[in-house]
Amino acid sequence: MTPPRMDKEGRLWCPEALAAERAKATFDPKELSVYIYGKEYLDRKAKILALLEAEPIFNKSVNYYQGRADRLKRALERGKRSTQLAKQHDWNMDDIAMADFLVDEPGPYGLHKSMYLITLRDQTNDEQKELFEKPAIAYDHIGCYAQTELGHGSNVRGLETTATWIEASQEFEINTPTLTATKWWIGSLGRTANHAAVMCQLIVKGKNLGPHPFIVNIRDLKTHKPLKGVTVGDLGPKFGYNTMDNGFLQFDHVRIPHINMLAKYASIDRNTGQYLKPANAKLAYGTMTWVRSRIVMHARLVLARSATIADKDAKDQSGETPVINYSTTQYRLFPILAQSFALHYVGLQMGRLYETNMKQMSKGNFELLADLHATSSGLKIWSTTTAVGAIEVARRACGGHGFSMFSGLAHAYQDYLPEVTWEGDSQILSQQLGTYLLKTARYVFAQRPGHVKKSITNPTIEYLLNYQNDPHFKLKGMIQDGQYLVKLFGHRAAYAVAQVARRRDQLGETWNSLLHEIYEMGMAHCEYMLVKYFWQALTTDEQLAQGKPLRSVIEPLFNLFALTTLESKAAEFFAAGCFSQGLYEETKVEILKALAQVRPNAVPLVDAFDFPDFLLQSSLGRFDGNVYPDMIDRASREPANASIINNDYRSAELVRGEAQSELLIAAFKAQSKPSL
Amino acid sequence: MTPPRMDKEGRLWCPEALAAERAKATFDPKELSVYIYGKEYLDRKAKILALLEAEPIFNKSVNYYQGRADRLKRALERGKRSTQLAKQHDWNMDDIAMADFLVDEPGPYGLHKSMYLITLRDQTNDEQKELFEKPAIAYDHIGCYAQTELGHGSNVRGLETTATWIEASQEFEINTPTLTATKWWIGSLGRTANHAAVMCQLIVKGKNLGPHPFIVNIRDLKTHKPLKGVTVGDLGPKFGYNTMDNGFLQFDHVRIPHINMLAKYASIDRNTGQYLKPANAKLAYGTMTWVRSRIVMHARLVLARSATIADKDAKDQSGETPVINYSTTQYRLFPILAQSFALHYVGLQMGRLYETNMKQMSKGNFELLADLHATSSGLKIWSTTTAVGAIEVARRACGGHGFSMFSGLAHAYQDYLPEVTWEGDSQILSQQLGTYLLKTARYVFAQRPGHVKKSITNPTIEYLLNYQNDPHFKLKGMIQDGQYLVKLFGHRAAYAVAQVARRRDQLGETWNSLLHEIYEMGMAHCEYMLVKYFWQALTTDEQLAQGKPLRSVIEPLFNLFALTTLESKAAEFFAAGCFSQGLYEETKVEILKALAQVRPNAVPLVDAFDFPDFLLQSSLGRFDGNVYPDMIDRASREPANASIINNDYRSAELVRGEAQSELLIAAFKAQSKPSL
Repeated sequence: MTPPRMDKEGRLWCPEALAAERAKATFDPKELSVYIYGKEYLDRKAKILALLEAEPIFNKSVNYYQGRADRLKRALERGKRSTQLAKQHDWNMDDIAMADFLVDEPGPYGLHKSMYLITLRDQTNDEQKELFEKPAIAYDHIGCYAQTELGHGSNVRGLETTATWIEASQEFEINTPTLTATKWWIGSLGRTANHAAVMCQLIVKGKNLGPHPFIVNIRDLKTHKPLKGVTVGDLGPKFGYNTMDNGFLQFDHVRIPHINMLAKYASIDRNTGQYLKPANAKLAYGTMTWVRSRIVMHARLVLARSATIADKDAKDQSGETPVINYSTTQYRLFPILAQSFALHYVGLQMGRLYETNMKQMSKGNFELLADLHATSSGLKIWSTTTAVGAIEVARRACGGHGFSMFSGLAHAYQDYLPEVTWEGDSQILSQQLGTYLLKTARYVFAQRPGHVKKSITNPTIEYLLNYQNDPHFKLKGMIQDGQYLVKLFGHRAAYAVAQVARRRDQLGETWNSLLHEIYEMGMAHCEYMLVKYFWQALTTDEQLAQGKPLRSVIEPLFNLFALTTLESKAAEFFAAGCFSQGLYEETKVEILKALAQVRPNAVPLVDAFDFPDFLLQSSLGRFDGNVYPDMIDRASREPANASIINNDYRSAELVRGEAQSELLIAAFKAQSKPSL
Repeated sequence: MTPPRMDKEGRLWCPEALAAERAKATFDPKELSVYIYGKEYLDRKAKILALLEAEPIFNKSVNYYQGRADRLKRALERGKRSTQLAKQHDWNMDDIAMADFLVDEPGPYGLHKSMYLITLRDQTNDEQKELFEKPAIAYDHIGCYAQTELGHGSNVRGLETTATWIEASQEFEINTPTLTATKWWIGSLGRTANHAAVMCQLIVKGKNLGPHPFIVNIRDLKTHKPLKGVTVGDLGPKFGYNTMDNGFLQFDHVRIPHINMLAKYASIDRNTGQYLKPANAKLAYGTMTWVRSRIVMHARLVLARSATIADKDAKDQSGETPVINYSTTQYRLFPILAQSFALHYVGLQMGRLYETNMKQMSKGNFELLADLHATSSGLKIWSTTTAVGAIEVARRACGGHGFSMFSGLAHAYQDYLPEVTWEGDSQILSQQLGTYLLKTARYVFAQRPGHVKKSITNPTIEYLLNYQNDPHFKLKGMIQDGQYLVKLFGHRAAYAVAQVARRRDQLGETWNSLLHEIYEMGMAHCEYMLVKYFWQALTTDEQLAQGKPLRSVIEPLFNLFALTTLESKAAEFFAAGCFSQGLYEETKVEILKALAQVRPNAVPLVDAFDFPDFLLQSSLGRFDGNVYPDMIDRASREPANASIINNDYRSAELVRGEAQSELLIAAFKAQSKPSL
């Protein structure tokens, strides 16, 4: 039984269908790849990919079948091997990041490589560098960053673990006073780390001086057994991220020397017990902004990856019509690609602003920081929630096959989910952004129109000023005009801010009662930024100039992004007084046009994102389109099939003939249905 | 280290916090339980729960740690034991359904018990009952229902598997002609079934007579090995549902006797090869409606279950404020409870209509059928997508702990997901509903106002007539008035239908280009039904009369349901011309009021849904509130911890000291960040 190249109805078999799709491109996918990533990135990807594919330990075909223990073991082996490769091939940090991206699984050395090393680098004095950083870089010490506790997530001030200064012996005593003080969720702790950077309330002479980091040796460097007074373990199965050994940790009055309190910013004088205060923490906000721009740039790849799999799956012609020709399928999938590009441009802009800000801050100018930090908080929420939603939309768009692990979408969803929660919970971040927006609105609205100081303008002040000048949006224009769309989004954001300011400042409503509005206002702000910088790229990028091939593919994506966002939030535009029944209907018509323009490029577009099969691990998203043989092949490797053939389950089977009562048989035959 | 009953800030420990919440109830949860379920259901639940809890095989604490093979084996054992219990205790079909609900895992006999037995019961003649149904009821035959194929999901007409009538030997030859014809996704097939009801294209004398069901013996009844010509196995790991052995099946010219074609409705004359046609299939639509009302009633429990866990988790006072007091948390969680009740009332109504319809159909009256069938298609989409969304909203509302399997929400999500896809894909069902709505609109709008025949009215005709009489919605009212809200929802639904009718019939737009609007129109129709029957209950149920205790808890839920639905779809109300900026702002204010009214009952409400800990398997949702000790306890049972203590992973660990290149160390120390 060999697969036919074309079925009896004359419909194309998948690989040919893909070739037909690729022939439709209005642009060169390779040119778009370089436009998105730059040549250096693509060369790096090719180089690292070749190395990884040659190593048997990185063969991912086993991933979907392995249980937790086997996956953890393999992840440790992979971590070991990639660290060896890094040394052997003189990888730099970009190479390592690329390898992590391609290996595509949370590794048990993850927190050692990131938070532990960074904490040591940034918060140690010279003596501590020798004592802690050096062995950590050499992987003699393997560390983790122990902050959150069982009863305390994002609220650092609420931590209960204590480090009490013992004057007599010049030591700190680390202790877990309650069950809820158990360190919890700590990555790389469950199995891997022998050291931990532990955030503890520092207690000196009975006074609580707040949370500070301490280095604690938790496992014996030879036997890897927990040291005396330390209870440590893996915290069990999770929705995803099961190759990471998130762990728990308790201390029973464990003593550590004075030198183990990280002393770059704050310290205790060994002899007097005097507390020396930390320096200005504003620099840290800069780093946080950089981390968030990474999250945004990563989210755009998560979106593109989901669309890659679903777009290729949808071109399948085994049904009567390729599913991708249904307008609903296009409605589900193409906006994901548009969102990916919107994040791309806003992420680039964040990178540029980050550099400018770092230069300004080094000269003592903190003007940009607040806007950048606030917007990056909002974009962290927007990008991660959008990306996680898109994976699931794409998975469902694949129908039944999306539910198989072989779709490559289920594990992507499971492993990406924590991004939504960590590095700042949505609810907390949206309040940070909200505080900034209200402050800015109060500042702008307090001035007479035209009197805001020019030197401190920024995009937020800009749209608020426009609103102040034209609160009833008399500006006329067409939704086919990108410049007008940017104005619409600015007005809607400003209206949202003005409403919250009014309810808070004039009506005196509580902050708590406004949290939902504050969240929505933050998203309106972010969507303005997304539309603005997408439009800016379209009008200023040379490669997107009128008549250039790339414009034919990017311009419809801009329209699609702006218009589908407009449609999905239309109520807010209605409420802001800048929308009408007519425009609403027109928006729907224009969306259909944009979808039709994206349609011929659907497959070439995802080709341009250049995700290798090694990364995707998806029967549905294979570059060559051999979907069905791949699914059969992967199914045949399901380990349960060996047990089935050997009939290992026989003992668990039903005893024949004893199974049902006469009463039940009668009820069944009488077609009586169970109650609702 | 014992957990304190109250922490140092004087905040309550979880169990006490729960007790405080329970003391706030404005009603008796036990009374509400009886109101929701009826006493018979609750008694049944208590009876079956006691039996299951006494059986070690149903101990679920192992579930979260077991790999696929172990879970499948245990599911087989559980299936065996529950079938024995059914016989021993003379369970009826309601008892069995209850046991399945409480065991709460897809079982490998699932398709035998449902589709295989039902197919045999409904489609066999007397001889076939003896030959197939009798041994199936006795569990001598264990069957599955093999319809979908690798390349063919919901499109039954596209199936490729053939059953060719061989005149000479009076047999059928079952064959898999292509790779895409492989039977795929078939539940209970991968490991368990020895028989299959196989849907095949019936070929007689070279003519294709369309899909028909055939019984095929696929595995040896003694050895359980696949029979000659049969290739069968499990199709591998899935996002969820891994206790079910979904399988694949191929036939290589397998011959079966004439009697194996199920002959109740269609058959082949053994001697002449003549095809005898099937009878009217309309009765089957009745059954489909009943199945969907079950899906709706089940979805309401999925919603309530998610809210149960998240509400209890959110009352935790280890932070500064119980999270449940944040308005955003309330905004996320309380509407889930409101949706659960909305589905409850619409489900009850579907049940009543189903009974009425069955009576009418038995008299040859098919008037109700179309409306009932169409609405049930839409409600299937609405209920399952709402429920699956709610599980994830609830999971995220639990913060980091929601990501642990011990939350009990992750596996609930994974196992519930297929409901969204099967029993009719959303895209196909929404088109069925759309076709009906357009047909009805054409019928109504073709009449002069006031001239629609009274005898054939139904809720759809009703709201379309209202629209015809008052297309610009001159009706004035207040959103605090439920009756007015029902009218608003009716007008918005009618407007959506009228718009699609106009674009299709007057502007001549294609059906395909309107699919997104058709989907939205269907949801508008369903939301009208949901609001209508919720309001109907509030105005006619004796137990909800003014002054009755249950009204104090149900009325705010009605407001919350109607108003949050109104807010989330506000753009459509704006577009339909029945909404304004003022009403939009008012809606937000009224939602906050409703949330505040639900707040004191948040925990008592979920108590009333009466989900036993045995069902929830959730550290966060425990009835007694002992969240943290339970998480510690479950973590300590993670099997990886034994390997960790025994240091089984040592060989996989990094080689010390060889780990990093000088170049990388220098780059790291110089704080160079990887590129975006």
